[in-house]
Amino acid sequence: MRHQLIIAYDGTSFGGWQTQKNSVAIQALIEKALATVLREPVSLFGSGRTDAGVHALGQSAHFDTTASFELKRLLLSLNALLPPEIRLLDVQVVPEHFHARYDAIGKIYHYRIHLHDTPDPFKRLYSYKLPYPIDLNLLHQGTAFFLGTRDFTSFANEAHEGSASKNAVRTLKRLDLIEEQGGIRLEFEGDGFLYKMVRNITGTLLDIARGKYSIDSIPAMFAAKDRKQAGSTAPALGLCLMQVLYP
Amino acid sequence: MRHQLIIAYDGTSFGGWQTQKNSVAIQALIEKALATVLREPVSLFGSGRTDAGVHALGQSAHFDTTASFELKRLLLSLNALLPPEIRLLDVQVVPEHFHARYDAIGKIYHYRIHLHDTPDPFKRLYSYKLPYPIDLNLLHQGTAFFLGTRDFTSFANEAHEGSASKNAVRTLKRLDLIEEQGGIRLEFEGDGFLYKMVRNITGTLLDIARGKYSIDSIPAMFAAKDRKQAGSTAPALGLCLMQVLYP
Repeated sequence: MRHQLIIAYDGTSFGGWQTQKNSVAIQALIEKALATVLREPVSLFGSGRTDAGVHALGQSAHFDTTASFELKRLLLSLNALLPPEIRLLDVQVVPEHFHARYDAIGKIYHYRIHLHDTPDPFKRLYSYKLPYPIDLNLLHQGTAFFLGTRDFTSFANEAHEGSASKNAVRTLKRLDLIEEQGGIRLEFEGDGFLYKMVRNITGTLLDIARGKYSIDSIPAMFAAKDRKQAGSTAPALGLCLMQVLYP
Repeated sequence: MRHQLIIAYDGTSFGGWQTQKNSVAIQALIEKALATVLREPVSLFGSGRTDAGVHALGQSAHFDTTASFELKRLLLSLNALLPPEIRLLDVQVVPEHFHARYDAIGKIYHYRIHLHDTPDPFKRLYSYKLPYPIDLNLLHQGTAFFLGTRDFTSFANEAHEGSASKNAVRTLKRLDLIEEQGGIRLEFEGDGFLYKMVRNITGTLLDIARGKYSIDSIPAMFAAKDRKQAGSTAPALGLCLMQVLYP
């Protein structure tokens, strides 16, 4: 039977969801725990990769198993085997044709920013501490330029080998600026995100908010369809995958 | 001139505020940064020690220096030298007779508890994840028994060599149970706290809330004046020194 997992992780010390490098991948750790509990090899399919250092509170993945078990007990057993940085929030039986990646119709990401003059040692792993002051008004004005259906080529890094299509048109439905204690977060909701797209939009907005580019330069960045014409890439640690949306 | 520092730290990877063991002490790191910036040896006097793993958002300490400097610049220079786990929140000039420890008339501590059935990987360093279910009602009823002026001998571990007096009478003015997302925190305000007192009261309340002791046994615990007659010690990582109070 096919099952869906909802997964939270603190990405600080992992090499990302999936990796070929000399670091521990979150996917592989969960597959290992599943194989131990279910006593058979299990392949886990995520909704998409997250990079090294990126966090999640709502990653989604599916797996198939012939074993039968009580779902709540399975969740407890798996969490007992996994490191505390990875917590499975839910497991449920889904239709055989469900696919965590291909059935996803959208995702919600949050990017947390910790303003440069409000030191807080508890946020250091989950929020980007700005090394410079910014104008929040400029940041807020800039967000509107990214909404809607657009070709986001200038805001996408080259994808991992073998991943993603060449079509860079995506729809960003929502980009909200929310004030938090000592900082802000940007909430992104879209039908899909290109490789490093959230971090590149955030980096560009921060460049604008610190006065490096003017807001008026954003349309030209889109038109160039060239990553080099847009702004910087915000660090991984501020990013969190909050939810994968299904029909 | 005498100066007061307000200090926040994530205690996860340190050996406590002050230590004789083979671990890094927070006090020593700040003294080193002060000596570098002020170009003279500096002794830092804290309001009290915090144990290995305990956090702070409002530790207070004082130091003397003959050097003169602009306070805001000093703060920036010191924070640039210190690891991100330690952030100096404020520095100010205080009267020559001010003493961070002897002038303190109270302290506020928070103890964070993460309920056993709400996994959250982001809280793992700053909150005690309960391995068992508890009855919040019992916990709440239990708090009232600790309020007021009492001999807290049964809730104090033996102090560090050379520290604290034998008088174990303290006044606990406030012990509030506050619900948070996925957990609770206990807020303690008192005129002073004995060694491990907050963690021992919390551990005892948790023992009661899980049904290990009845609420009625608390008066006997106080009367025994014997640490062995009270409940367990809650782990360091849930504890945070929020504020040191001065007249």
